[in-house]
Amino acid sequence: MGCGEGWVEDAGHGRAYRFRSPDGHSFELYWETRALEPAAGEQPALKNMASRFHGRGACPRRLDHVNLLAADVSALRDFMTGAFGSRVTEQIRLDNGRLGGCWFTVNNKTYDLACTEDATGSHGRFHHLTYATYQREEILRAADILRENGVHIETGPHRHAIQGTFFLYVWDPAGIRVELANAGARLILRPDGEPVTWTETERRKGQAWGLKTIATFHTHGMPPVET
Amino acid sequence: MGCGEGWVEDAGHGRAYRFRSPDGHSFELYWETRALEPAAGEQPALKNMASRFHGRGACPRRLDHVNLLAADVSALRDFMTGAFGSRVTEQIRLDNGRLGGCWFTVNNKTYDLACTEDATGSHGRFHHLTYATYQREEILRAADILRENGVHIETGPHRHAIQGTFFLYVWDPAGIRVELANAGARLILRPDGEPVTWTETERRKGQAWGLKTIATFHTHGMPPVET
Amino acid sequence: MGCGEGWVEDAGHGRAYRFRSPDGHSFELYWETRALEPAAGEQPALKNMASRFHGRGACPRRLDHVNLLAADVSALRDFMTGAFGSRVTEQIRLDNGRLGGCWFTVNNKTYDLACTEDATGSHGRFHHLTYATYQREEILRAADILRENGVHIETGPHRHAIQGTFFLYVWDPAGIRVELANAGARLILRPDGEPVTWTETERRKGQAWGLKTIATFHTHGMPPVET
Amino acid sequence: MGCGEGWVEDAGHGRAYRFRSPDGHSFELYWETRALEPAAGEQPALKNMASRFHGRGACPRRLDHVNLLAADVSALRDFMTGAFGSRVTEQIRLDNGRLGGCWFTVNNKTYDLACTEDATGSHGRFHHLTYATYQREEILRAADILRENGVHIETGPHRHAIQGTFFLYVWDPAGIRVELANAGARLILRPDGEPVTWTETERRKGQAWGLKTIATFHTHGMPPVET
Repeated sequence: MGCGEGWVEDAGHGRAYRFRSPDGHSFELYWETRALEPAAGEQPALKNMASRFHGRGACPRRLDHVNLLAADVSALRDFMTGAFGSRVTEQIRLDNGRLGGCWFTVNNKTYDLACTEDATGSHGRFHHLTYATYQREEILRAADILRENGVHIETGPHRHAIQGTFFLYVWDPAGIRVELANAGARLILRPDGEPVTWTETERRKGQAWGLKTIATFHTHGMPPVET
Repeated sequence: MGCGEGWVEDAGHGRAYRFRSPDGHSFELYWETRALEPAAGEQPALKNMASRFHGRGACPRRLDHVNLLAADVSALRDFMTGAFGSRVTEQIRLDNGRLGGCWFTVNNKTYDLACTEDATGSHGRFHHLTYATYQREEILRAADILRENGVHIETGPHRHAIQGTFFLYVWDPAGIRVELANAGARLILRPDGEPVTWTETERRKGQAWGLKTIATFHTHGMPPVET
Repeated sequence: MGCGEGWVEDAGHGRAYRFRSPDGHSFELYWETRALEPAAGEQPALKNMASRFHGRGACPRRLDHVNLLAADVSALRDFMTGAFGSRVTEQIRLDNGRLGGCWFTVNNKTYDLACTEDATGSHGRFHHLTYATYQREEILRAADILRENGVHIETGPHRHAIQGTFFLYVWDPAGIRVELANAGARLILRPDGEPVTWTETERRKGQAWGLKTIATFHTHGMPPVET
Repeated sequence: MGCGEGWVEDAGHGRAYRFRSPDGHSFELYWETRALEPAAGEQPALKNMASRFHGRGACPRRLDHVNLLAADVSALRDFMTGAFGSRVTEQIRLDNGRLGGCWFTVNNKTYDLACTEDATGSHGRFHHLTYATYQREEILRAADILRENGVHIETGPHRHAIQGTFFLYVWDPAGIRVELANAGARLILRPDGEPVTWTETERRKGQAWGLKTIATFHTHGMPPVET
């Protein structure tokens, strides 16, 4: 596909093959992984857990997905479906005909990568990284902890209309957006399902319970750009 | 009432008047209290909170109630209603005519003190101290933390038939029983309500979802006795 | 106090004495109450419940409080403390010296009546009625049900800075504001606590997790007025 | 593999191919499916939902898994891995060397089928069907509803040691066991993970919070047998 950049070495896993998306995002694929070895005293009481449960802070259970910004979401969609065999589960079709956003999966999670249009027209930017919590109650609890620690809460807690995920978005001290999310029991179990396509009119209704999408969502990403 | 023992000085509050229940439990009443002054860096983000929220461990929000064991629950009931003006909200009437348990309140919590019959016939023993959690989800979360730390879980999580409280009972390293409980929105708002009286037959159905009352509940208390 | 209007007869309870607040709100006090008699088949499985639990809709467990609008919140505060012996637990002191809001209680709930300033300058209006839910999870569940039924969600779900209550505000088809709220384990247990006083600057920070107070909150009430 | 029985026609989907497991369980595979068409008035407010949300009863969100009983769990394991390409995520190795239980998946759910040893020595029996709830709070709420309706709660609510699932087991009026379960955010994301193997000694510790496995769990299945 002409997007390859070659093999690289990183910490925590074996050598990785690096390549770029049409919008300029850097990707790496690797197989060999260094599994966590709990430190002394960090062995869990139940052997099917990776390490001891402390329940501190937001205590997310795993990475959930990554959201990219792109100047051309359609090109990113063709790349993800072509290069990874990703399926599109939901997407936004703007009145101007462009894709405003696209949600992808390679398994039965409803999405493992999302891409939304960058209103600044920039290329290859990062929107947010998402951690999954065990229950949505933990997102409400995390909101109290984040507030006590002066973390900037950008929007939420609320429920997304698209994908139905319960969410909270915060900025870390460097301005990097992090989402805490809970999808409940939602999985894609139908192998031949069609993407759900949302219109601008439908999106104007806001999120699941009416919260309007915050303006910074279309412009704030990494690296920062003048807006 | 002839149960007074006189004034005593304790840490954390002004002088207290000490007296004994008919079963021999030691009580103290005091008014002057030393309010918490949050240490530097422990001021909460919201001024209507006593101190900073960390969300560590079970993070209970307040004391909820105390449960006493007594050889004669009826005598304790007369004492609580006579000496404190407590109301009886629920009680157990055994087939032999004795009171098996009694739940008291002086406000609109459904109970702030409970007393159950000591199957060992001992006098003046302590059954458990209870902490209230913000939501019942936190009791399930606490169960994971307690398990990781090797704390003995005596029974629960489950829901009480009497008072409807969601509960978890653990023993501290000294064998002292501690309950984590959540009453949801339950309050006694009717000023002239009658006590709810449970029979032995009704109690044999177990707790709200069928869990049977554990045998140690009728014998394990402080101080320990040979059983 | 010169605010009496005399005895009235209503359905569901014995005769009531009617009187008016200084701002013109109509109050009634009564003692004799007709307790619920569950219909055939509506007896609960547990005798300490008023009726069978169906878990339909938002299924709130009880009334929580009423919020009034007033042109003069200070006069309402003097009335509530003088006529009912209510305690003020929290209040808003505006930069202009007026009380912007006041939260009252006659028991150990942190508030059973609230009053906020009516930005329209109207007298004796109603702001909202609040139902308490068992857990805050039920408010998130209710939000889904309300959305499905086309009910107008005015604001929330979110957590109040004042009183710390988890909330959801909706309008019924007539435009009457109804709140679903959960206070967790929060109770006022200190008999000599002082009111918590909030400044305009503090209020500008919004609710507990940053949501700004919606403009209609200061103007929308019953009966409607031209704004 | 010699276990085929041929094509069959059923309601709700296209023709299915029927075959038997080594223990005698009947399986069917099909592709063509009749998707749900919401009835008039049952269209959801959000187009990515299959139908309107009512929130009645336990309101599970999807099927989660099936649990079979088998006289020879090892034979069933070889069948599932050989015929379906299922992976074994967790298993119980009894002191006598036999497999006491085995959990399988074909995707990144941690299990979609489980099989446990039938203590009656019977062949081809059914243990339970499981529905997934959105949050575990809904399982606690369902327990109240099931109790009100006189449904037999066999065990739970509690958390499984194996797979970590929060569970509630009930029997329908015919004695068929149904589980309500919530796995939180738990997924198998490592493609080359090894099965977690539990010993009898580990199983004797009971479930995650200490509840002992109920005796009927090893004998009660469908069809019923004399025990």
